[in-house]
Order: sequence, then structure tokens, then C-alpha cells
Amino acid sequence: MTLWGGRFSGKLDPAAWTLNASLGIDQRLAAQDVRGSLAWAGALEKAGVLTPEESVQIRQGLLAVAGELGSGAFTFQESDEDIHTAVERRLGEIIGPLAGKLHTGRSRNDQVATDFRLWLMDSFPGLDGAITGLQGALLQRAEGDLDVLMPGYTHLQRAQPVLLSHWWLSHFWPLSRDRERLHDLAGRTSVLPLGVGALAGTTFWVDRHALARELGFARPAPNSIDAVSDRDFAAEFLFWAALAGVHLSRLAEGVILFSSAEFGFFELSDTYATGSSLMPQKKNPDVFELARGKAGSLLGSLTGLMATLKGLPSAYDKDLQGDKEPVFSAFDTLIALLPVLAGAIRTLTIHPERMRRSIDPAMLATDLADYLVKKGIPFRQAHELAGKVVQRAAVESKALDTLPLEEYQAICPAFAADVYAVLDPQRSVSRRIAYGGTAPEAVVAQIKEAHENLVLFSPPN
Amino acid sequence: MTLWGGRFSGKLDPAAWTLNASLGIDQRLAAQDVRGSLAWAGALEKAGVLTPEESVQIRQGLLAVAGELGSGAFTFQESDEDIHTAVERRLGEIIGPLAGKLHTGRSRNDQVATDFRLWLMDSFPGLDGAITGLQGALLQRAEGDLDVLMPGYTHLQRAQPVLLSHWWLSHFWPLSRDRERLHDLAGRTSVLPLGVGALAGTTFWVDRHALARELGFARPAPNSIDAVSDRDFAAEFLFWAALAGVHLSRLAEGVILFSSAEFGFFELSDTYATGSSLMPQKKNPDVFELARGKAGSLLGSLTGLMATLKGLPSAYDKDLQGDKEPVFSAFDTLIALLPVLAGAIRTLTIHPERMRRSIDPAMLATDLADYLVKKGIPFRQAHELAGKVVQRAAVESKALDTLPLEEYQAICPAFAADVYAVLDPQRSVSRRIAYGGTAPEAVVAQIKEAHENLVLFSPPN
Amino acid sequence: MTLWGGRFSGKLDPAAWTLNASLGIDQRLAAQDVRGSLAWAGALEKAGVLTPEESVQIRQGLLAVAGELGSGAFTFQESDEDIHTAVERRLGEIIGPLAGKLHTGRSRNDQVATDFRLWLMDSFPGLDGAITGLQGALLQRAEGDLDVLMPGYTHLQRAQPVLLSHWWLSHFWPLSRDRERLHDLAGRTSVLPLGVGALAGTTFWVDRHALARELGFARPAPNSIDAVSDRDFAAEFLFWAALAGVHLSRLAEGVILFSSAEFGFFELSDTYATGSSLMPQKKNPDVFELARGKAGSLLGSLTGLMATLKGLPSAYDKDLQGDKEPVFSAFDTLIALLPVLAGAIRTLTIHPERMRRSIDPAMLATDLADYLVKKGIPFRQAHELAGKVVQRAAVESKALDTLPLEEYQAICPAFAADVYAVLDPQRSVSRRIAYGGTAPEAVVAQIKEAHENLVLFSPPN
Amino acid sequence: MTLWGGRFSGKLDPAAWTLNASLGIDQRLAAQDVRGSLAWAGALEKAGVLTPEESVQIRQGLLAVAGELGSGAFTFQESDEDIHTAVERRLGEIIGPLAGKLHTGRSRNDQVATDFRLWLMDSFPGLDGAITGLQGALLQRAEGDLDVLMPGYTHLQRAQPVLLSHWWLSHFWPLSRDRERLHDLAGRTSVLPLGVGALAGTTFWVDRHALARELGFARPAPNSIDAVSDRDFAAEFLFWAALAGVHLSRLAEGVILFSSAEFGFFELSDTYATGSSLMPQKKNPDVFELARGKAGSLLGSLTGLMATLKGLPSAYDKDLQGDKEPVFSAFDTLIALLPVLAGAIRTLTIHPERMRRSIDPAMLATDLADYLVKKGIPFRQAHELAGKVVQRAAVESKALDTLPLEEYQAICPAFAADVYAVLDPQRSVSRRIAYGGTAPEAVVAQIKEAHENLVLFSPPN
Repeated sequence: MTLWGGRFSGKLDPAAWTLNASLGIDQRLAAQDVRGSLAWAGALEKAGVLTPEESVQIRQGLLAVAGELGSGAFTFQESDEDIHTAVERRLGEIIGPLAGKLHTGRSRNDQVATDFRLWLMDSFPGLDGAITGLQGALLQRAEGDLDVLMPGYTHLQRAQPVLLSHWWLSHFWPLSRDRERLHDLAGRTSVLPLGVGALAGTTFWVDRHALARELGFARPAPNSIDAVSDRDFAAEFLFWAALAGVHLSRLAEGVILFSSAEFGFFELSDTYATGSSLMPQKKNPDVFELARGKAGSLLGSLTGLMATLKGLPSAYDKDLQGDKEPVFSAFDTLIALLPVLAGAIRTLTIHPERMRRSIDPAMLATDLADYLVKKGIPFRQAHELAGKVVQRAAVESKALDTLPLEEYQAICPAFAADVYAVLDPQRSVSRRIAYGGTAPEAVVAQIKEAHENLVLFSPPN
Repeated sequence: MTLWGGRFSGKLDPAAWTLNASLGIDQRLAAQDVRGSLAWAGALEKAGVLTPEESVQIRQGLLAVAGELGSGAFTFQESDEDIHTAVERRLGEIIGPLAGKLHTGRSRNDQVATDFRLWLMDSFPGLDGAITGLQGALLQRAEGDLDVLMPGYTHLQRAQPVLLSHWWLSHFWPLSRDRERLHDLAGRTSVLPLGVGALAGTTFWVDRHALARELGFARPAPNSIDAVSDRDFAAEFLFWAALAGVHLSRLAEGVILFSSAEFGFFELSDTYATGSSLMPQKKNPDVFELARGKAGSLLGSLTGLMATLKGLPSAYDKDLQGDKEPVFSAFDTLIALLPVLAGAIRTLTIHPERMRRSIDPAMLATDLADYLVKKGIPFRQAHELAGKVVQRAAVESKALDTLPLEEYQAICPAFAADVYAVLDPQRSVSRRIAYGGTAPEAVVAQIKEAHENLVLFSPPN
Repeated sequence: MTLWGGRFSGKLDPAAWTLNASLGIDQRLAAQDVRGSLAWAGALEKAGVLTPEESVQIRQGLLAVAGELGSGAFTFQESDEDIHTAVERRLGEIIGPLAGKLHTGRSRNDQVATDFRLWLMDSFPGLDGAITGLQGALLQRAEGDLDVLMPGYTHLQRAQPVLLSHWWLSHFWPLSRDRERLHDLAGRTSVLPLGVGALAGTTFWVDRHALARELGFARPAPNSIDAVSDRDFAAEFLFWAALAGVHLSRLAEGVILFSSAEFGFFELSDTYATGSSLMPQKKNPDVFELARGKAGSLLGSLTGLMATLKGLPSAYDKDLQGDKEPVFSAFDTLIALLPVLAGAIRTLTIHPERMRRSIDPAMLATDLADYLVKKGIPFRQAHELAGKVVQRAAVESKALDTLPLEEYQAICPAFAADVYAVLDPQRSVSRRIAYGGTAPEAVVAQIKEAHENLVLFSPPN
Repeated sequence: MTLWGGRFSGKLDPAAWTLNASLGIDQRLAAQDVRGSLAWAGALEKAGVLTPEESVQIRQGLLAVAGELGSGAFTFQESDEDIHTAVERRLGEIIGPLAGKLHTGRSRNDQVATDFRLWLMDSFPGLDGAITGLQGALLQRAEGDLDVLMPGYTHLQRAQPVLLSHWWLSHFWPLSRDRERLHDLAGRTSVLPLGVGALAGTTFWVDRHALARELGFARPAPNSIDAVSDRDFAAEFLFWAALAGVHLSRLAEGVILFSSAEFGFFELSDTYATGSSLMPQKKNPDVFELARGKAGSLLGSLTGLMATLKGLPSAYDKDLQGDKEPVFSAFDTLIALLPVLAGAIRTLTIHPERMRRSIDPAMLATDLADYLVKKGIPFRQAHELAGKVVQRAAVESKALDTLPLEEYQAICPAFAADVYAVLDPQRSVSRRIAYGGTAPEAVVAQIKEAHENLVLFSPPN
């Protein structure tokens, strides 16, 4: 059954039918399609198109269809072109020809845009929760690992000591931005297309503001042509997902590095690591590698939809049929990935002594420069002098804290015996107390702020 | 001059130097770099690192540098690795060794992130204004072309008549969403990295909240590691630009189509069209084609930066040096494109009679179905009957409004003489009065809403 | 069952298992996996790892597994991590513990790379055939529409008359380049990874050249580390598919334009067009719109895999698990799309009179300039004079061929009465006889060259 | 000056002019533009459009223009719309109105496509040489580091010992595939558009085969419409560059990892490393990080052009103006990057003892399993037993080679005293002698094959 055969004399070529049919993808919109139709029946009743009795009958029929869909009793047929057709077909089987009144004043163009937005709106709380779950795991680690010192890196070179806690939190905030972005895009998704027909509006008197309220939308779309062709919300969602993917990839890259034998900072729990079919000793961080890899696919989904949208004039074109698959796929990816990453992070074992041992005294060279600054030497010069100390220590194969004072003083007379006190990583960390720094008290304050942030955004919808 | 030579015995290979130097790109941050340094000098003074006199001297020196940069008197040198180095080098030439105190407690990592955010924040009002300018042009057309009927299209097939005014507005609202998104991302850009050093925070007591206020940021970044490596704002800006590009491309595609001889709806002003070096009769919509093409490049810039970010662990890596070029390029593209499109739209001539003539009576088939619905026939059946009328008219090479009544009644007895009254495009349009529809009164209301929307967002910053 | 449990004390978290398991995707490699194992059993026999009897037993077992897979009798189990595990598990059920010898000296790293390449190699002839099928449809049209004149466009503006035949052929050659590229990438795909173990090579004496020959590969991979991590062939395939998608999109865009009421050049057969659920008169070129849209997804698949690959060091990482889905999806897209497009093109009706009527005499302005050139006037001046004629004709609302001779001569005295003979589209076309031009004789030669080109590349493999 | 003003009454809006003008980008095609014009003048002479004297005069004028362009004496003017206009304008200044004959039968559409292809063809030898240079550096390292053992990694976990030489070579072969691809695309670039006019062919008798030969093209394009709009060669080049970028990124990622303090395998020469403005001890692998980052931009360039091409119908549209910038940029990126990477690799110091120490005895677990296989135990069981040995050793905090024989035998009685001989990394490596393996003799053979491969492809053109 198609909803459009009237003027056609031939029948669609079977291969073209297969290409054209979207049921395999859009049946995921079944619940939203029924919900939209329930509201539409109400609107048609208010518009005088349906009698109250007809409206009741249609709504009861739709509920029966919903029941079948929910229980799995619904049987899709080869000839169902899409989910809209399938639902209307089944409604007709249940309530008879009256079903044919439901599509009055409506087009699949406004219908599918409505279903799709509803589906996304339904998906936001789960996504928000999954991100919050990962944030919770990071925060729990930050609280637990507060006294652990580790090397901080830039350019993958040891740079300055930081608290492990601080490192965990550096992955908390990007996710917080993701939640903020999700909140923003949820607002922009909450715009109702229904009631604009194919592109020009409807000739029946429909109160679209009431319809929006009933379906949980913030407001109706203000222009019918835009309403049927606007997929900004899908593009924005895919960007959102791709950027969240980037954050997960960067977190994963860190965990993978730190779980290598060479770093040796982390050890994954057996429940979140896999082995090798050839090498019995291997313990692989597969779930983090998958996170890193899937960030690539998420970026691909974004690019793909944007390229498709770019190629269209305004109003509805069939190219838009490809909008749902990447969105569903991005949702599935993140909703599967986030809890696993949270679990893996919660359960990993850390090796504080390995981290501590990796703090090369040369990492305190900046503190050495700051020491000289506090003795009145301009930083630029202090930086150069500290560099010379590092070089000298390297030449003599000594660590900064075992280099004799004379050597220090040969480089700069301002060095005094108190210089060795500077060369303590714990103290170095403790000195970084300005807001956002890695000093324990700053990190404790940061943890508090993170907790407040977690409840800042009410879940969308 | 480099800011880091201390421990190095060799000199950088010249080709590596060229590859590494970023001055060619980042000198665009000059004004922001000086502004950040002025604020930093103040912070160092409050922190007791600089005496008030030193602070004044440094600030005066920086203002002198700013003056040279502004007037074009500043001479960059081959040996300036980047804009930060160039400014500090010149400051040293002006005020002597005291310049070496300015970089105390600061790293180029937090400095460049601050400069870059400041630059973007500076760019938002101009971008917002340029979009508003194009919206104004569309709105002016919508007001001027209110009585013009045209065919509305879906699948590039004539679908239903709409007002040209309504079509112009269908391109207004996507830009309005762009402005909303710009507003949101402006908020997320307004987070200050300065004062977090290379990655761990600074050992000098710096009030980063005060620093944020002084530089016009909403708040300081809460985590130093994240602060130096977060480029979400750049990625979000590029997505913003790419989606705006998609909107311009879709608008352009419409104008190009309507300016073709076959459609013949629009004619570009000579001041916005170009000719052919071979074909003297040509009048080409180059500026719209360029808009369409540049949307591709904007998408490429987004993809490129996201792919780069995806490949990094947290904290600063040199890969991030590639973050500025795509952002500058996206800004330049849009800031050049938007006013030209606005001008071209303001000045184009429309051919209302061509549009009117293109309204095929078959475009009223939906109205025919609605007519039957109002006679009590379920829509699904009405749709099929209307389809048969269309087919019959086609077979007899007649238009719907010249097909004899008997033919109508042979298809469905519910057709009566009043059916011909339905087949008037003007009436068809007028019936679509529900919110968002194409009826003149709905469009007038929409224009009013558009005007309100234009002033809804105060320009960012 | 996993192939790697030995050293693990815990069990994989169920959600992590689901994320990690790839059977849903890679079971498509079943036939290739068995084929690779059959050859591997042979190699192990030659290497003395298996006795001839064991080898026979294993091979018979594998054939039984293949039979079950082929007939659909094979039952996958929840605990099958991937296709390799499933096949080995079932082999063990059939032949007992001897199955445990098959994985000797082999890793899933070289196994999956081999399976994947085999699968692609198997897919090439079908893809090549599907493209050739579309080329055949274009060529058939070119032969049939040889006497049809149409306007040629640049910038979507009428430019110069061309033969419709020539336009069809303009879409033949890009596909010919696609076939050439497919041929090239087939050669680069035909490199055998099997026999390199996890990354370092195998300790058993395996003749990888013989193994390559047996499995139909051109040669074995020369470096074991590269062999397990090289996915260039997949990236190159996705680029190939994306560029083929661009070609289909450009063809589709042309057909969509020409099928619009405004152009009116083409009418799709009912067997390849669809209708509207709201507008009974619509006939939509859905299959071409889908082609255009899917080109976006194909580009996304390319981008996604490239971004994933970019983020890896050499050797195998689990991120590579995401390599197959985009490749399968690209294959499915093209193999479904190409025959439908071929069918739609074969069956569409053309309206030669509409095309002829759309040839505006101004399109011969270049011929007018060429006319003056042949009278000795430099082209640049001739071009300007022809432009003035066009402008004058427009001012007087005349066509070029009805503008009086005096008007011509007022612009340039070199114009004579023979100028009107130039203004005939048929002649204009006929004058373009140089190789590659649109003159009928040149197009006939082009058709001949196209036929030769069709058989130029033997199908890959 | 424009080449098309004739029919236009107004003047282009200045902002539109700036947007439209492409001289800033396409002046890079100057040499190619002159070369194409020289050949075209010859073709016009053979076609009888120019007398021999005129042809000589034009050619001499063009050579004078070329001289000015080469010496830097050429002054571009604001009013030069593009390089074609600039060259023709200057030619006119030198030789007078005769210059106006040069554009006879030619369009900027075929002209720019020809210039662009010529430019790319000119760029191939340099690119091929730059890649070969990097391959040479890798090969030199492979020859020099032949006796160095290192851990091989999968999943960034230590997997099996390999030769460092073998690892270097694993980055040689991807570049070899890049050269092969470059060779293939060079063939597809070598197709001449010139002589097809704007889109329909030319009315002057031009021998395009001769023209192709003269300009160094393999053959003329067979279809004029395709010829002016085909940018496959640019897309294929950008894919080529992006995939080469992926290879450089993967190499860079490896070098960055191995240069970290934790791995400690490599130390960059001071001539190829940079320091920190804050942390005096840092030595950063900037050039490799830049390589990694630029791979992102290269991917963006590919995506951008593909998205632009996807949105077009066939024949020339102005969107194509954006084709050159990404190509130039990709070329510049690679031509700058490749020699620096080669230099950095040639000059880096390796720390063989760190690599050797990082070979954990557990990395020989596969060899242990293979040992049991050789004693007749099926691999699957042997793999599990070896896994148990690893687990036992871990529990007892022993290395595999210090675990007492009884422990081995408790796990499997087949273990005998000769098991310890297996646990030698040097021997493990030596056992992997099959083609492509890491055994020294296999690697020596691989080096020989690599040398042969280097000269396999003659440089394109």
C-alpha cells in the first residue's frame, strides 16, 4: 500500500521500491508517529473535520496500534512504504475506512519532521543521563585520587607535576560543556512542524500552538516551507555527538597511554579489558580504543548529513530521507559507549608509585625559574638560567636535586641553599592555588564546583 | 629570537623553523595579544611580581607596541616565531630588560588560547550584524513582494501555490537560528584561560576572576589542563559557520534556479551578475554560486579541525597550531559573502507574471481533495479521487479548471459546480491561515514576528 | 567462547561485551573467513604443523561449516565474539579438539585483514558490472537521442546549443574514470596479509607467496606490521565510492532539473517515480533525489574512516574494528542505486520540442562573435560587439534572428545578410566538429569511443 | 578590465567584485596560463585564425609577459579579475589590439581547467621526490638499525619483539603505495580540456590531439561538457594528499610516543625539536605534532571540495572557483612537511638499551605456545596453557624466564628444560623468517625489495 497511487498508471519497479522504502530505518519512529497522530486527531476534531465520535474511534484505534507495536504483535508488510503508511494501514484494518480521515490536512512532510523531532526529544534525557554517569565516574575518581601526584604532559613530554585528581577533572569539564550544548539544542529541537501540510500550510483551521503544547513542544514553527525542510536540529545533534566523541576520544587516548607498560599508571579491570587470540599475555584496552575509533564515525555522520543538506534548495526533497540513519547511529553509539567507559574508569586500578616515580625533577624547572623571579630576576632571564641548570644537570647525568649548590651558583649567584626546597613535586603542586590550578585546595574547590555543575542543567524536557 | 632557547645546543633546521613558525597566521591576533598582556601586567602588579612603576612602564611600552601595530609601523622579523614572541621582542626593544618580567607565570599555552578567544569574541558582533543585514534584505523583500503568488516546490516539482513573501521568509528563519546559535556559542567562548600557565596553574597569586572581568570574559576556566587544550569554541564556531553556509547555499540554490531562463522568476541586477569571456549573452549568478561553493569549504574547515582534535590526548599539543587558519578563513568567507548576498537580493528584479503563469492548475489538486473532505469524504479517498481528476485532465490535455463538470462527476458525484471556485490559486493561498501558513494574513503576522525576532538577541558582547 | 581467556580472572562486563563484539557486522565475512581458513590449513600442512590426515579432516570440517553458513543452517551464538570465533567454535563442534590446531601461527589481526580484502575483491566485479550497466543505459540514450538539440548550460544559464546525446555522454565519461580507478584499487587490494601473525611474522615455515596465489592475491604483504594495520584499501574504496557518488549526484541533479515543469525536458516513467500523500498531482523524481542524498552519506563514510585511521600509530589497534561497516554500507548503497538509475534513465521519456523551444537565439551570440572573427575582427572586439547586439535585441524585445540588418550594421559594418544563416542552432552545433565537440559527427565518433572504452577494462579479478 | 563587459549596463558592486575576483589565488597558475596560451596561439595559426606573423607576434608577446612574471616585474592591477585577464591585459599593452585575437574559440572554462591540470602535473615530480626523500630516510634508518631489538605493540600494549629496522620499514611501504597512487592519478590528470570552448566545443578547426601532445598531455578530453566541469583529478589529488597525511600522522604518532620519557626509545636532534616558553626542561617533538595536525587539515580540504562538487549539475558552475585553494594548500603542506620529517628522522638518536629493556619476557608467550605446538599440543590449548604460565608468573611476581620448571610442568607436563631457550627475544625474532616477518634475514631481504621499489615508478611526467 502506498499513500499516493491515484494518478499513477504503472507500478514502481521493485528495485526502485526497495531503494525508496524507508521502513527499515523509520520504524524506530513508531511510538512518535502514533503520538503525533493522536494529537492530530484531536486537532482535526477541534477543527470540525472529525466528529467527537470519529475522533474517539480513531484514537482508540491508534492506541490499539500502539499496543501492537509495543508488544511486538505488529506485523510490518512488504508493501508498507514507511512507518506512516504502516500505521495508517493497520489503523484501517482495525477501524475501517474512517482511518482514511486521519491524514486530512497533513502531509508526510510535516509528519516525519514531527516524528523525528519527538524522537530526538525523547532521546535527550537518556543521553544527558549517560553523560552525567560518566561525569560521576570521573568525579568519583577525582575524589578518591586526591592525594596522587602524577606528571602532567604537554606535547606528550613531561611538563609539570599535577594531581591525578586534576587530570580526571580535566575530562569532566568538556562533558559539562556537552551537557550545556545538549540543553541548548534541545530548545531548538522543540519546535513543532505539524500542521503546515506539505509546504504551504493547511486549509483546515488548526490551532498549532495548542498542538505544540499537547505534544510537548515549546512552540510551533513559524514558516511552513522552512518547517518541512529544516534539519538544523539533526545537524546540530550530529555535531554535538561528534564533539562529545572527540572528548571521549581524548579521554580514551589518555587512558590507553597510561595503561601502556611504559607509562604503567593505570591497569584496567579484567571486566573491561580483552585478550589476544595469539598472544596470551596481552590485556588490551579495547573499550577505549573503540571509543577513539567511533569518534571517527561520528564525525563522518556529521559530514555526511551536512553535505546532503548543502545540496538542497529549500522545502522538502527526498534526499532528506537519509537524515535519520546517522542520527540513530550516533545515538546508539553514545548510549552504548558512555556507560561502558564509566564502568571501566570506576574499576581501573591506579599505580601511584609509578606516577610518582615518573616525576622527573627536571619537571620543576619552571619552579626554579619562579624561584629566581621571586629573587627579583626578570622571568625571561630566569627561564634561560633554569634552562642552563637543566642542561648542566643533563651533562653531568645528575638530577636537579642532586646537582651541587656550587653548580647552581656558577650559573646564577642568586641561587641559595633554599633552592632544594623548591625541588619537591608536592610543594610544586601546592603552590598552584590560583583558581583552576592543581593545588589540593584548588582541586577540592573544583570538585565542589563540579558537583554543583552536575545539577546545573535540569535534564532536557 | 625564540622564547625557549635555554637548554638547546643546536639551532633549529631552517625548514623546520619555517614549518614551525606561525607568525604568518597568528599575527592577526596582535591586538588581542597586546590586550591580554596589558591585563596580565595588571595582574602581576596585584600579585606583587611587578612594582606599580614597572607595571606602568610595561603597560606604556605595550601601548607603544599597539600603536605601531595599529599604524602599520611595526616591523615583523624573520626570527619572530609567533605573535607573542614578536610583541615581547618589540617591547624589549622599547623598554629594555624589564620586558622580560611580563611572561612571569604565563605560558604561551594559556596566552594563545586567550588571544584566540578574544579574537573570536571580537568577531561576533560583526558576524551577527552581517547576518542581520541579510535578514533585513529578506524581510524587505518579504514586505515588498507580499502580493506576489508563485509556485511552491517540493522535490523540485510544482506542489502548491505560495506567496513569494513566504518563500523569502523561509530563508529568514534559518538565519535566525544561526543568530541564536551564535549567541549560545558566544557564551561558551567567554571563558578565560589566562592564568593557568602551561597546564598546571601558576605559582603567583593571580585573581583570575578579576582578570576575566577586566578582559570582558564571563568567567575563568575551572581547570588548567582543560583550559590550555579546550578548542570546543573553535569547533563550535566552525560548525556554526558550516551550518550558516548550508543556509546560504540553500538560499543561493533557490535564487540560481529562479534566475534561470526556464524559471524566469528573478533577474539579477547588473551590479551583482557577471558575464562570460566567450558567450556575450550570458548573465551569471556568480555570487550565489560562490556562496554555494564556499559552503563546501566551510564544511571542510569543520571536518579538518575536528579530525585534528580527535587525535589528541588532553593538554596542549602542537597540533593545535592549526586551529586558527580555518577559523580566520571561515570568518573571512562569511563576512565577505553576507553583505554581497544582501545587496544582490535587495536589487534583484522579480517577474510576478512569470511566477503566476507557472502556477499550474494541477497544483490545486490538494485543494480539490480538501473540497471533497469538506463534503464528507475521508481524505484518503478524496486524495485518490483528486488524483484521478488530475490523470483524467492530463489524458484529455485539459487544465483542471477547463475539465467539464461531467468529467468531475463521473469520477465522484460529490463534485458540484462550486468546484471551479476552489481552483483559484489566490483563494488557495488565502485558505492557509493557520499559524505558519502562506495566507496573506498569516504572512503579515509572520513578518511582524520576524521584526521582533531581529531584535531578540542583543549582539553578543 | 572467546579465543583469549587464558590469563583473565574476571569476565567481561556484559555491556562491554556487547560493545566489543563485532559479529553483527563481520558475519558478512563468513564465506571469506572459511576460504582463508581452508588455505591456511593447507599452509599448515605444508609447514608440517598438520599431518595430511589432520589437514583433510579440518578442511572437511570447514566445508561442512561453509555448507551450514550457505544454507542458513548455521546458528550464531550470543557468545560468538566475531565471525572468526564462530567459525572455529562450530568447527570444534564438528571435528572435535583437532579444530584447536587451525589457529596455529595465525592471529585474528592477519585473519580479519585477509577476510576483509577478500570480501572487497569479491565485490569488485559486481560493482564494475553495475557501473557498466548505468553506462550502457547512458550510451543507449546517446544513440537514441542523437538528433535532439537542447540548450547547454553553464552557471545554470543557457549557454550554447548541444546535442542531448552529447549531454548523456558527459555523464558516461566520469563513470569510465570510476571504472579505471576501481581497476587500480583492485590491484592495491590484492595484497595478502595472511601469514604475518599478530604483527611480527610467524614462527612456522609458511610459503606466503603460494598462499597468496591460492587465495587469488597478486602478492603477499612485504611487512608484517604494516600488513595488519594497513587499511589504505578500505579508505581508497570509500573515496572511490564517494567520488562515484558525486558523479551520480551530478547526473541526478541534471535529471531532476530537466524533469521539473519549468524545464520540461524529461518525464520519468511511472515505474521510477513516486507520488505525494497530500498532493495528488505530484510525480516526484525520488530515485534521483535519493542518489543525490546518498552521495552525502558516502562522503561521510569516507571522512569517518579517514579520521579514525589518522588517529592511530602503526600496527593493529581496536579502532580498526570500525572499518567494515562504512565499506559494507557504501557497497550496499551503490549496488542498490546503480541499477535503479539505469532503469530510470532507460525508461524516461524526452520532450524534444521543449528542448528545441528552449534554445534562445541569444545562445548563438558566440557564433555571432565567431562570424565576425572570420571576417577578420579580433575575437575580443567581436565578443564585445556580439554583446552589444544581444543588449540591443533585449532592449527592443527582439530575438537575434528578427533584429533587422541595419541594427546589426549600426553596431558593426562587417555584419552582412549572411549573418542570419549563423543564427541556426542546428548549424551552430554542426560547426563544433573538433574532437570532443557536440557536432553530430563528433558525437558519433564519441559513441564509438565510448563503446570501446566499455570493454577496455576487463572486470577486476 | 573584464573579459565580458559587453552586454552589461551597470558595474559590478565593489564587494561583489572582491568576492568574485580570484587573482589572489589563481596567479599561481601564471606560468601554466602562458604556456597554454603559447600552444593555443599555435593551434589558432594551424586553424588559419592567425597568420604566421600574427602568431609569432603573439607568442613573442606572451614570452615577454612570461619574462615579467618570472622576474617579478609584472604588476597586477586591481581590475584584473583573474590570471587569464591579467595575462591578456598585459599582452595587449605589449602587442596592441592583436592580443584580442588570442581568446578566439577559447573560453576561460577550458582555459582554467587546462592551467590547473598543468600546474598539478608540474607539481607531481616534486611531490614524488619529497616522498622518496622520506622513504630514503626511513630506509637509511632501517639499514643502520638492523641489529636493534624493540617491543612491537598492538593496542599500544607490548606484543612481540621486533627489529627496529622492521618498524621503520612498516612506514616505508605506505609511502610506496602513495607513490603508486600518485602515478595513477598523474595518468588521469594528463587529459587536455583545451579546445572545447565554454562547454560545446569550438567552431574553429583545432587539432586537439596535437595540442595535447604539445602541452605534454596524454590525450584530449573526449567530451566538451565533461571537460570543463571535471574536477575528479583535484578530488583524487586531495584524497591522495589526505591519505599521505594519514601515513605521516601515523608515523608521527609513533615517533612522538617513542620520544616520550616513558618510552625513551628516541631522542630528537636539537635541530628538529623546540622548547617551551615556560618550562626550560622541555624538548618538544613539534614537527611531528604538526604533521599529525596537518593530516586533519588535509582531510578537511578533501571533504570541502567533495561537498562542493556533489552540489553541482554537470558543466561549469562558478562554485568550481574554490577548487584551487585546497589543492595549493595541500601541496604546500606536504612539500614543506616531507623534507623536515626526513631530516628529523635521519638525525634522531636511538636508545637501543631502553628498547631492549622494554622487552618484557611475557612478550614471548606466543613463542611459548608455539613451543607446545611443536610438542604436539593443539594451538588453541597451547595458547591457554601459555596464558596460565603468564598468569602464574604475574601472581608470583616472576618473569617467565625465572619461573621454575616445576611451575611450568605443573601447568603442562610437556614443558621441559629446553623451554628457557625459547624465552630469548633475539631468538624469537630470528624464528620469524617467513616473507614479511621480522627475522633479520627477512628484513634484509625486505630492505633489498624496498630499494628496488624506490626506483619502480619513474617520476610522473
